[in-house]
Amino acid sequence: MTNTNLHDTSRLNTQKLPAAQKSRREFFKKSAAISVSAVAALSVLDPVKVLADDKAITHHAPWGQHWGDPITKNLYGVPSLYEHNVTRRYTKLLASGNYRAAIAVSPIQDIEGIITPNGLFFSRSHGGTAHIDPNKFRLMIHGLVKKPIVLTLKQLKRYPSVTRTHFLECPANGGQEWRATQYNSLQFAKGFMSCAQWTGVYIKTILKDLGLKPQAKWMLSEGSDNSEMGRTVPIDKVLDDAMIVWGQNGEALRPEQGYPVRLLLPGWEGNLCVKWLKRLEFASEPWYAKEETSKYTALKPTGKAVQHFYANEVNSTVTSPSPEIPWTDLKDGDLIEIEGLAWSGMGTITAVDLSFDGGKNFKKAKLKGLVLPKCWTRWSYMHKYKKGKTLLLTSRAMDDAGYIQPTIDQETSVMGVESVYHRNAIETWEVAKTGEVNHVQIRS
Amino acid sequence: MTNTNLHDTSRLNTQKLPAAQKSRREFFKKSAAISVSAVAALSVLDPVKVLADDKAITHHAPWGQHWGDPITKNLYGVPSLYEHNVTRRYTKLLASGNYRAAIAVSPIQDIEGIITPNGLFFSRSHGGTAHIDPNKFRLMIHGLVKKPIVLTLKQLKRYPSVTRTHFLECPANGGQEWRATQYNSLQFAKGFMSCAQWTGVYIKTILKDLGLKPQAKWMLSEGSDNSEMGRTVPIDKVLDDAMIVWGQNGEALRPEQGYPVRLLLPGWEGNLCVKWLKRLEFASEPWYAKEETSKYTALKPTGKAVQHFYANEVNSTVTSPSPEIPWTDLKDGDLIEIEGLAWSGMGTITAVDLSFDGGKNFKKAKLKGLVLPKCWTRWSYMHKYKKGKTLLLTSRAMDDAGYIQPTIDQETSVMGVESVYHRNAIETWEVAKTGEVNHVQIRS
Repeated sequence: MTNTNLHDTSRLNTQKLPAAQKSRREFFKKSAAISVSAVAALSVLDPVKVLADDKAITHHAPWGQHWGDPITKNLYGVPSLYEHNVTRRYTKLLASGNYRAAIAVSPIQDIEGIITPNGLFFSRSHGGTAHIDPNKFRLMIHGLVKKPIVLTLKQLKRYPSVTRTHFLECPANGGQEWRATQYNSLQFAKGFMSCAQWTGVYIKTILKDLGLKPQAKWMLSEGSDNSEMGRTVPIDKVLDDAMIVWGQNGEALRPEQGYPVRLLLPGWEGNLCVKWLKRLEFASEPWYAKEETSKYTALKPTGKAVQHFYANEVNSTVTSPSPEIPWTDLKDGDLIEIEGLAWSGMGTITAVDLSFDGGKNFKKAKLKGLVLPKCWTRWSYMHKYKKGKTLLLTSRAMDDAGYIQPTIDQETSVMGVESVYHRNAIETWEVAKTGEVNHVQIRS
Repeated sequence: MTNTNLHDTSRLNTQKLPAAQKSRREFFKKSAAISVSAVAALSVLDPVKVLADDKAITHHAPWGQHWGDPITKNLYGVPSLYEHNVTRRYTKLLASGNYRAAIAVSPIQDIEGIITPNGLFFSRSHGGTAHIDPNKFRLMIHGLVKKPIVLTLKQLKRYPSVTRTHFLECPANGGQEWRATQYNSLQFAKGFMSCAQWTGVYIKTILKDLGLKPQAKWMLSEGSDNSEMGRTVPIDKVLDDAMIVWGQNGEALRPEQGYPVRLLLPGWEGNLCVKWLKRLEFASEPWYAKEETSKYTALKPTGKAVQHFYANEVNSTVTSPSPEIPWTDLKDGDLIEIEGLAWSGMGTITAVDLSFDGGKNFKKAKLKGLVLPKCWTRWSYMHKYKKGKTLLLTSRAMDDAGYIQPTIDQETSVMGVESVYHRNAIETWEVAKTGEVNHVQIRS
């Protein structure tokens, strides 16, 4: 039974307020005068040294002595100036000479939870970031459909929308590490990915309207930027969960993500999720687009190449500690939360194991917060730090499709070292005696 | 049983690729030459008029004729220039003369899904936006705890963290509407709220360490900005789900949200969630802080005032259509998705009803995507538009605490019209014959 909600404060599980306001004010005066010299040790934390200016900071903070900024300053808000170091980054290795065919990697060591804010979302483009006037945007859907169509953005958005949280990952994530460690950095080693809440329309919803012909087995998606990115998608994926998305974390897609719309194939390679989308065509046989022959293939030791990868395989990483977040300030006996991410393009993460000896022995980590399909899953493990002991931290994830991450040796024996794609072998941070963290590779 | 995941592409449910690459290339050439003149009508959409330049746009878009921006341009990304109109807004009515004690309202008509991007998150401050150096930040926790403490930011973040998605709402949301409609705008009428994924530590986790004394029944939270915002929180809420948060949608809190940390009391009034937090004190009796006597109280018709409101009651709104998103371009018979938001500070949304006649008759709307406690829930209803008919669109939400939104008359009979707080009566958009949308009030 429902009640009409009429501000009856008695419904709240709170104590009644006493009437003696005057004595309470005196109490408040007294309490405000409490000294911070009573500060004591905390079992999780070290004893806190009370600095000479702690009292000044907690009672009369310098930033509390004057007006703050007016709301008229940034109607579209920006981060604190003190966070200027938290940005995407790039190296010459990851960029063409003109920085157009390039990748900007996300600071995943600094990300909290499972959402990457749009300003920090990784970006890969083959011809730079196009800027599209949404009024001039057109999307053509044709080929083996009964009613081919050209849609304006407004018309596209008239279809019933869905919102889903999914990671997006470049298949080259970690790909520099096939032969040896290249980057002593989490951001550069594993930051070719991000995770967002996407809003758009299922392509199957549109196809219900247009009428897909039974001979249609493949879909070509084509971008309108100057690289004219084109990729072929099997129809099963199209009819499962493929989306055309225009919303990212609540607002319009950013230009770097394909504004006004991109394709999203949940869990599949980022480059398949064509940005600045202009055309979807359906056919009975696949295309062999430029990016399916010259790129995004992997030469195996057998001499044959994998031409079409699709889903990004089950994977994980320790985010804290990491080369960017060392344990140099920890003391013997300190409790510390080890955190990481796990993800699979084939389903939902079911478990994450954590090893302290490079993969010989594993313990169960805890999955934190929301656990969603084809989405980042955050995990953690509470650890009592032993100063002066070297650790080899290795995580290993499992998904509900039945897969588990391989060792480097297992993966290399099948894939060789010629590919830069789809590396999902377990990786290791060495925590040195000093607390510094280094990227190492454990081979048998 | 789990398998080692070794790039066996046969595990994917995809067709085998035919070997005849040459003929496929010819197919591709042919398909690229398909004319858009075959474009046909769509049942959801109007027949698309193929513009003279549609072919030029879909095949040779002007933005595809040159390089896009290099990745070096914005390492912290920004929205498309074409989205410049999607911003927070303010009016003189909502601001002091110097725009410091003011509110910037969020463009909730433009938000997708249930996350508000940080740049568009509503902001209310009593003394402007403070800018705090995180290295100088200190948080004092004292009063009726066995081990009072002063924490640095780094120490605070060493506690085990949690991530939760919750809305945050100013109790004055909709408060201008008590006597009559003031704003023919969704953003100004209901945009005093947003929703985010928050990361921080439960205060109960810290208290387990510090040792809460049994006499402690209330907590004072105090900000360090120049308004020195102070509010009292009953201990039940503190020990339930109260958090100190430093992360918002994956990155550090924005300065306008209290960087580096604020209090978060999921579902409760925004002003209780003190920003730029500097002090938590525990006591056996409540404080009567400035903001609990001069503000945030409501005079009832009985002559008595409600002094302490806590949870924001169950509420909802239609976001599309709205005054900002009219139906002037719809034609008779068009299918259109009506969308809206529902939320309750007391629990989880269980149902949303939608009325087309101002609340006489209701139909069940569909809850979309994730449905989480004390979180925005998005809902929708597919509607066949009838041109030339006036509609009175009214939504009504229910929560799992057993509450349902009251009518305006029911709410006013208890609360009168002197308050500006906690309005959660059902509200109505009139869709005029022209498709224009106006904010109206339905009284009996």
